[in-house]
Amino acid sequence: MTTEILINAFHMNTVGHQSPGLWTHPRDHARHYTDLAYWADLARTLERGLIDGLFLADVLGVYDVYGSTADAALRNGVQVPVNDPSLLIPAMAMVTENLGFGVTCTLSFEPPYPFARRMSTLDHLTKGRVGWNIVTGYLDSAAKGMGERAQVGHDRRYDIADDYMQVVYKLWEGSWEDDAVVADKATRVFADPAKVHRVRHDGEFYKLDAIHLSEPSPQRTPLLFQAGASGRGRQFAGQHAECVFINGPTKAAIKPYVTGLREQAAAAGRDPSDLKILALATPIIGRTSAEARAKHADYTRYVSHEGALALMSGWTGVDLSKYGFDDVVRYEKTDANHSALESFTTADPNRTWTVREIAEKVAIGGRSPVIVGSGAEVAEEMMSWVDETGIDGFNLAYVVMPESFTDLVDLVIPELQARGRFKTAYRPGTLREKLFGRARLPHNHPAARVRV
Amino acid sequence: MTTEILINAFHMNTVGHQSPGLWTHPRDHARHYTDLAYWADLARTLERGLIDGLFLADVLGVYDVYGSTADAALRNGVQVPVNDPSLLIPAMAMVTENLGFGVTCTLSFEPPYPFARRMSTLDHLTKGRVGWNIVTGYLDSAAKGMGERAQVGHDRRYDIADDYMQVVYKLWEGSWEDDAVVADKATRVFADPAKVHRVRHDGEFYKLDAIHLSEPSPQRTPLLFQAGASGRGRQFAGQHAECVFINGPTKAAIKPYVTGLREQAAAAGRDPSDLKILALATPIIGRTSAEARAKHADYTRYVSHEGALALMSGWTGVDLSKYGFDDVVRYEKTDANHSALESFTTADPNRTWTVREIAEKVAIGGRSPVIVGSGAEVAEEMMSWVDETGIDGFNLAYVVMPESFTDLVDLVIPELQARGRFKTAYRPGTLREKLFGRARLPHNHPAARVRV
Repeated sequence: MTTEILINAFHMNTVGHQSPGLWTHPRDHARHYTDLAYWADLARTLERGLIDGLFLADVLGVYDVYGSTADAALRNGVQVPVNDPSLLIPAMAMVTENLGFGVTCTLSFEPPYPFARRMSTLDHLTKGRVGWNIVTGYLDSAAKGMGERAQVGHDRRYDIADDYMQVVYKLWEGSWEDDAVVADKATRVFADPAKVHRVRHDGEFYKLDAIHLSEPSPQRTPLLFQAGASGRGRQFAGQHAECVFINGPTKAAIKPYVTGLREQAAAAGRDPSDLKILALATPIIGRTSAEARAKHADYTRYVSHEGALALMSGWTGVDLSKYGFDDVVRYEKTDANHSALESFTTADPNRTWTVREIAEKVAIGGRSPVIVGSGAEVAEEMMSWVDETGIDGFNLAYVVMPESFTDLVDLVIPELQARGRFKTAYRPGTLREKLFGRARLPHNHPAARVRV
Repeated sequence: MTTEILINAFHMNTVGHQSPGLWTHPRDHARHYTDLAYWADLARTLERGLIDGLFLADVLGVYDVYGSTADAALRNGVQVPVNDPSLLIPAMAMVTENLGFGVTCTLSFEPPYPFARRMSTLDHLTKGRVGWNIVTGYLDSAAKGMGERAQVGHDRRYDIADDYMQVVYKLWEGSWEDDAVVADKATRVFADPAKVHRVRHDGEFYKLDAIHLSEPSPQRTPLLFQAGASGRGRQFAGQHAECVFINGPTKAAIKPYVTGLREQAAAAGRDPSDLKILALATPIIGRTSAEARAKHADYTRYVSHEGALALMSGWTGVDLSKYGFDDVVRYEKTDANHSALESFTTADPNRTWTVREIAEKVAIGGRSPVIVGSGAEVAEEMMSWVDETGIDGFNLAYVVMPESFTDLVDLVIPELQARGRFKTAYRPGTLREKLFGRARLPHNHPAARVRV
């Protein structure tokens, strides 16, 4: 296989994303996440390296499972405070021309009518470079922010999401015809009313009777990302997603996920290759192998085990503060925790984990595999993941900002390019055109079925 | 009186804001509202002129009262299509240092928990230059976008708004103490959990049990704008607003509004001068008086009467398509229409208006007074409005973009400065510091009562 590898950079509008405690590293600048200049600099760096997109995580809640409080998360800056990610994109779009932007938005907490307009606005302002990571929410603390006692059940959230998708597809694809906007000063017609259609929706969860407020944007439906790892989540991804993020500790562990996702796409009547599958990984890169290992050792001095356990407790719903540091974690599988703890166990289903081992693992790169090496070594390892698992590329987390991404751009990208495995120029057009060579979702995607 | 006059520029993320049809003018560039460069250029122009802020209107719905369809609004580009305004601000903040940004957000359609975070994010990214125009919504078409048959009653909307304000005040002012963020790499403490407080709210309309997701932003509560003209709206403004927009045809017509608003502030226990009152106006400016009149005549050639009536029908709820062009409009006063049609009649309560007269008036500058003259003449007229009515300044609409605002900056501002009625440099600090000389809302404002 000689396909080019897709690479997204992974960040969040917060001080500590996937490597708890690393904000204390002397070279880490993530404290400046509230400054536009920090994000503009990052966008320029990524575009210099021809990185496909910046993927922005988000969570509308706090990690308060650990010890039943948010104290550990607050103390260690573990994904809290966390600002709105979508507002970063216009500023980064100002200083770039090709970089894509994936933004995580939790559909449970935002009505589809204003949300669809917000995404269309981003698609206009970026000239078609925006993607939406569809999230149904996973923290009870977020539900409490909305005045609810706890979030609705896992599978039920996906039923709501299916209904929500129908509404936003109708707004994006089924309201304005391609040539509805005339904008002709001579004839004085801005839009042809006959080509702007009222969307009527009367679903189980959402009702709507309105035209879409935005005129057609370059992509219409933004590029659709999804990351659900559960059975129902993968079914949803197979139906809707164009890019799917997965996470697993080894190539052997993720291979069946990749196969399963493509089967889900086929089952939904889609071409399995219409899913771009990106695996989460955290590279630590040096000019030499030794330098990379030294960097890894240096980074490890700044980790926060407490922060790591707060993160892992939030992901799994298992309060790890109740265990001793050397206890083996035994837990009852539930909807909320199985996909997260599974990613520790699928590599070797018989392996057990102590709390200390979990903390040490999660403190650098969260649950993702950490790839340590020279630029060439990391490039080779990434290539082997793609070739042996059938993934299309990576979603790469940082450890130290912006060092992790400048290392990626300066040391890994040239090695991939030298091996013919990374593009040497951006393709023209929108994000969807760059990734899939087409402007619109294909006819066998559910969004196309409501198109006018 | 020699106080300096406040000036905001008024725009909307759409092709035709207050002067229907003028998008067809050869020199009008508002068609580029989907481009970031258009907004960046505008922001630079306004900052060059020391304009206090750019005020962005919004409406989450379409003008479909006229003829019971949105056809006229669509055909004439009358505030539709309309994109999300908040996403423009980060890009404009990138290219400016002092310009303020007021953004209209309809609270009925966005839950307070994510909304409070969105505003805090804007306040961080702009370094404290953001204001929020509190709107409760006025179009039934917007309610239909949310799956409701019609919007809730007018006064009921303000009851909901009062509850909403309590929630967002608690999130902005009552969750994080000033020194909660330590961010000390040496002690490895990001935030002190003892200084981050859970907000509990159990109101009639909103419930919440969560910490605010954003760390303290420069202003905490954004600068608060409001524009309600009804009795209940003015009461709300007296309680909450720091800046109030009003609209009336003459100085005599607005003077009692100004007095009434300051009385409402006093009745709410506030200092009447803590309200900055800004009147809507549309200047048409030439290098000479004759040039301004010629410009006005030229602009008039591009108006859309149909668009003007679509706008006015939406504002009032009165379908003006049911009248002949020369009919006098007679209507039954309701909550929905009284404030809008009142602004035509308070100048002379006995004067009647034909549909044609309404169309001609509204087609340039909407319901606002139009001030035509040389820079000096417009400056003198603005000064007389301030001195004779007690307003603090203006919210100035454009006719042709960006010509109206470059004329303002190049021709009017220097005349005001020469008369000692406009600043010659921005004041330092946040938007609130620039306008009020203080960083936080004063102790007698309801937001201060929930402060920790």
